[in-house]
Amino acid sequence: MRETGIVDAIRRRVSKGTRSALVVQGMGDDCAVLRPRAREDLVFTTDFVIEGRHFELATHSAQDIGHKALARSLSDLAAMGGEPVFCLVSLALPTTLAARWVKAFYDALLSLAARFQISLAGGDLASFEKVVVDVMCCGRVPRGKALLRSSAKAGDDVFVTGELGGSAHGFSVRRGAAWRRHLRPEPRLAAGTALRKLGATSCIDLSDGLSLDLARLCRESKAGAKLDGALPLARGASVEEALHGGEDYELLFTARPWAKIPKRIGRLPVTRIGTMVQAKAGQVWFGGRLLRPGGFDHFA
Amino acid sequence: MRETGIVDAIRRRVSKGTRSALVVQGMGDDCAVLRPRAREDLVFTTDFVIEGRHFELATHSAQDIGHKALARSLSDLAAMGGEPVFCLVSLALPTTLAARWVKAFYDALLSLAARFQISLAGGDLASFEKVVVDVMCCGRVPRGKALLRSSAKAGDDVFVTGELGGSAHGFSVRRGAAWRRHLRPEPRLAAGTALRKLGATSCIDLSDGLSLDLARLCRESKAGAKLDGALPLARGASVEEALHGGEDYELLFTARPWAKIPKRIGRLPVTRIGTMVQAKAGQVWFGGRLLRPGGFDHFA
Repeated sequence: MRETGIVDAIRRRVSKGTRSALVVQGMGDDCAVLRPRAREDLVFTTDFVIEGRHFELATHSAQDIGHKALARSLSDLAAMGGEPVFCLVSLALPTTLAARWVKAFYDALLSLAARFQISLAGGDLASFEKVVVDVMCCGRVPRGKALLRSSAKAGDDVFVTGELGGSAHGFSVRRGAAWRRHLRPEPRLAAGTALRKLGATSCIDLSDGLSLDLARLCRESKAGAKLDGALPLARGASVEEALHGGEDYELLFTARPWAKIPKRIGRLPVTRIGTMVQAKAGQVWFGGRLLRPGGFDHFA
Repeated sequence: MRETGIVDAIRRRVSKGTRSALVVQGMGDDCAVLRPRAREDLVFTTDFVIEGRHFELATHSAQDIGHKALARSLSDLAAMGGEPVFCLVSLALPTTLAARWVKAFYDALLSLAARFQISLAGGDLASFEKVVVDVMCCGRVPRGKALLRSSAKAGDDVFVTGELGGSAHGFSVRRGAAWRRHLRPEPRLAAGTALRKLGATSCIDLSDGLSLDLARLCRESKAGAKLDGALPLARGASVEEALHGGEDYELLFTARPWAKIPKRIGRLPVTRIGTMVQAKAGQVWFGGRLLRPGGFDHFA
């Protein structure tokens, strides 16, 4: 399996996939070329998915890894209220992995890409001892309308989409719906664009755990938050898992108290869980006590 | 050293650095936000720089790695005739590396970024056994003016900027100017924009070696090439190193025979080395013989 052979196999798959109208030149050149639309901003994110950190080859199939690598970045687009445009996929992998593995990885990634109409426009490929994936996603939003972390105000209500702790619970029990949920997270793109239109004041995706991600949102917004509503627990998940478990990929957002936030966006429940308060930037209270951010820190 | 501590150290450095007028929101949110200019296309590339593949911690300093990681991606922008706008830097590294290493890495990367006025607008950070860097760069070009690989025509002259084989030679002798050149490659951005304005018909950067990269340009252009001019050898480099050595990061480009291509762009020499010919896509002749692409293939 030579590099050009792998690239050709990828290009054959990509040529059958989604092609965004904005992508003028896709794979096969030094750069992808994009023609932006007038009166739109573009949003960009990049996320690692690394063997031994985010997955193990023994428990995660090539398809799981391909899905997760793109889903993590799409979740960041969702948090900005963005609509997907294109992605670049950098993949390092051992030469001992079969061509079949590489094809299964891209098939799953491109299958998720097709569902959200994002085109794969390039990337990089390298041989390495372990599998390392880095996916860059680009989305678009009407000019000036991207949902930021930094614009929540004291008095805003705090909400989450979906249920919390399911991914951490699935990771501990390794079976059933919670494990499947851990393996194949669902980026909340429709919810993200709906929240942007509903006038949410800030938004972040829950990748590292509610306690850590809410502290980040508070820190950027120079405020605190008080969690005073019941957390929407995933089936089987504990409050600890809901507070500190990562990889739920739900959206945490804020809105003015008079904003009309529905109980559901499509079939996805939306739950009020607290209030933004004036406090030292980044402080979060839960059950009357200061909550110590307990989510995932790579360097803790 | 916690993740937030590292991110804060990076953000302090970034806040003193270049801020592109197009970047509305830089580091600190789920995504960076860009406001494109009217009548401009954007070009995007991503490149790995991996321990044990592109460098060794024993021979390459944190500064060398930070420089090289950005230079590789900037070189791809140069090949499109792009002007730099922003980059995203994904860095995985062992927790045992000192905070000083991380700071030195970003200082060198941001020093190169400042020279080419590209802003660091985000990225990702992860702990891992080895150092893996993936840098995404975005550049801008007037609409429809990006230099592609696929638009060379039979009859075009083939040129290179600078000298060839220097990086491979430096890698083998590990001393002197050639070694310094290997460690700190210089992306040819000014040449790239000049070539776009001079009406070059195609362009690619020499990252994997002349024989392989010229074959790629020919393949995408559905043509062949005949190398019939003397190769501009770097001091000490052999013809083999010039043909098959990677990482020179010079620009290989084509132009119609009547195009006015100067002997120098600024202080950078430009040398005619051959002609595009009608042939099976991707075939390259050198010294009257078919040249077998011998550059770097990760999976060979």
